[in-house]
Amino acid sequence: MGFFRSNIEAMDGYTPGEQPQHGKFIKLNTNENPYPPSREVTRAIQAVLEQGLGRYPDSMATAFRLRAADILQVSPDCILCGNGSDDLLTIITRALVGEGERLRLPYPSYVLYKTLANIQGAETEEIGFQSDWTLPPQFADASPGLKLAFLPNPNSPTGTLVSPTQVAAMAERMPCPLVADEAYVDFAEQSCLGLVARHDNVIVLRTMSKSYSLAGLRFGYLVAQPSLIAQFLKVKDSYNCDALSIAGATAAINDQTWLAETTVKIKATRTRLTRELAALGFDVIDSQANFVWAEHSRRSPRELYEELKASRVLVRYMKYARWREGLRISIGTDQQIDALLTLLKTMV
Amino acid sequence: MGFFRSNIEAMDGYTPGEQPQHGKFIKLNTNENPYPPSREVTRAIQAVLEQGLGRYPDSMATAFRLRAADILQVSPDCILCGNGSDDLLTIITRALVGEGERLRLPYPSYVLYKTLANIQGAETEEIGFQSDWTLPPQFADASPGLKLAFLPNPNSPTGTLVSPTQVAAMAERMPCPLVADEAYVDFAEQSCLGLVARHDNVIVLRTMSKSYSLAGLRFGYLVAQPSLIAQFLKVKDSYNCDALSIAGATAAINDQTWLAETTVKIKATRTRLTRELAALGFDVIDSQANFVWAEHSRRSPRELYEELKASRVLVRYMKYARWREGLRISIGTDQQIDALLTLLKTMV
Repeated sequence: MGFFRSNIEAMDGYTPGEQPQHGKFIKLNTNENPYPPSREVTRAIQAVLEQGLGRYPDSMATAFRLRAADILQVSPDCILCGNGSDDLLTIITRALVGEGERLRLPYPSYVLYKTLANIQGAETEEIGFQSDWTLPPQFADASPGLKLAFLPNPNSPTGTLVSPTQVAAMAERMPCPLVADEAYVDFAEQSCLGLVARHDNVIVLRTMSKSYSLAGLRFGYLVAQPSLIAQFLKVKDSYNCDALSIAGATAAINDQTWLAETTVKIKATRTRLTRELAALGFDVIDSQANFVWAEHSRRSPRELYEELKASRVLVRYMKYARWREGLRISIGTDQQIDALLTLLKTMV
Repeated sequence: MGFFRSNIEAMDGYTPGEQPQHGKFIKLNTNENPYPPSREVTRAIQAVLEQGLGRYPDSMATAFRLRAADILQVSPDCILCGNGSDDLLTIITRALVGEGERLRLPYPSYVLYKTLANIQGAETEEIGFQSDWTLPPQFADASPGLKLAFLPNPNSPTGTLVSPTQVAAMAERMPCPLVADEAYVDFAEQSCLGLVARHDNVIVLRTMSKSYSLAGLRFGYLVAQPSLIAQFLKVKDSYNCDALSIAGATAAINDQTWLAETTVKIKATRTRLTRELAALGFDVIDSQANFVWAEHSRRSPRELYEELKASRVLVRYMKYARWREGLRISIGTDQQIDALLTLLKTMV
């Protein structure tokens, strides 16, 4: 070919989890929410449909920002919306990390971060978690060319959380912005949101895909100081969020009762799944997310994944070089989890 | 700040056309379609809403690609979908143009292209149109570091078209991919789509925002040879198109009768607007898009813009250094254009 940048040609590209478009699967592989979203979402989208789609949407998603600001107790000027949090991860990386510069991330964590660095022609520095799932001090050390650090918190695939106290101490020492990617935070006990006001290098990232059950809609937002948002705006596509997703996400975040009820259910199912997997001989890390990481001392996780798939239950098999392989199992409904456990009982 | 890349800090950012969210304006400033989209769009979106939004969408927008391939008479493997054509312009630029490299575009043309080059830390080469709105031979010349050329065709703000014959001859000579950005092609007499099969460096870009009246939905696509698409896929966000936009865009492109009827109406209004503006002393370039570029020998375009805005009619005032200033007026309904003309008659 020869047309493309050498870093692009050298890449494999990020492979998202399987999304079968046909056939009936119990889908526990991409951390979707098994419950339908708030009914207010459909109503809000239908109201926009009645007004028509011919006009460009509000480029700043103002309606969402005003509502979210009120709920999160931050200024609307501290909120930037994106076409899913992946869009915001992309914007942040493009604004901060140039060719040959460095992006830091913990290991194991979300594989997409490396892909984003590769696209920029940048290097990554992976810092392994400690055995108690805290981060070693060097995660916050300065290093030549370091421009950005991503910290998924709770982390994927482990569901573990670095405490806001440790994140604050790291942010204090870091020479660059630190993104707390809180995709799963509504299933956790603590958040880093409160750090934004006190640390001009802390960015908190959220998505409506998981806890609000809107993965199909593509909507996320970040919270950061306005001086950072002013730069990110230069990189953002003018109309990155469509009119339907702005209305749907606004209605969703407005329904905090729905959110509380749904996350309580999911966390209860998570507790039960963790206990029952342990009873089947799995090694399960205590999770603060809507999934658990499970390994089995006697059975290969890849084989378990294949056998479950043959029975039309999809979980995520993941293998990390220099760490481990295992299954990342999303928290479904109680019925779905019962079906999974029934199958696993016959396998292990 | 000091955190950001120097090219980002130095940028002004792209300013999209005004999108008043409140108040009643006749909006002739951002080339939206004044007619509601095909009724099939709403039906298709409602069907998805009934299934729920909890699952991630199809990352390849397969339903759209199959339908579009059939209508355009190309292979589905030659189609890549985006969150508006701006998303695809971004993907193309990130895949092809690195820091310090060069992106070519004609002048005057779509201002966003320069913004995309700036974000990459790349340089732009602007080649002026000739007086007959063809391009000089140097648009196709090799030059050090040249990695990509954008050609809006029909062009904005002029509505002029470079013939596919000239585009083919240029592509033949160019050392890099050439993007024919056909955002407005459904209002034109010719297209470059047929060139993709014969030139591995031609990329044709389309949007559903203008001719299909779906600016609020954010959906675009490109047509190129599969070897190029394989590289673009590495840069694309996994789930760049949401489930509602995929369904809506598929329904829209499927309704070619609606498209034909709507574009006939808009072209008839364009002919009438061009004639009546000329009768009022405007200099109007013959347009193959859903807007016209108009200048007046005696009246300042900025003043006309301000006076129209005071009467709640929005047109786009544009000023190009080393070229001209004028008004870009989108083709509205006949009633909207009558209202505009009535106002202009009192002003000039």
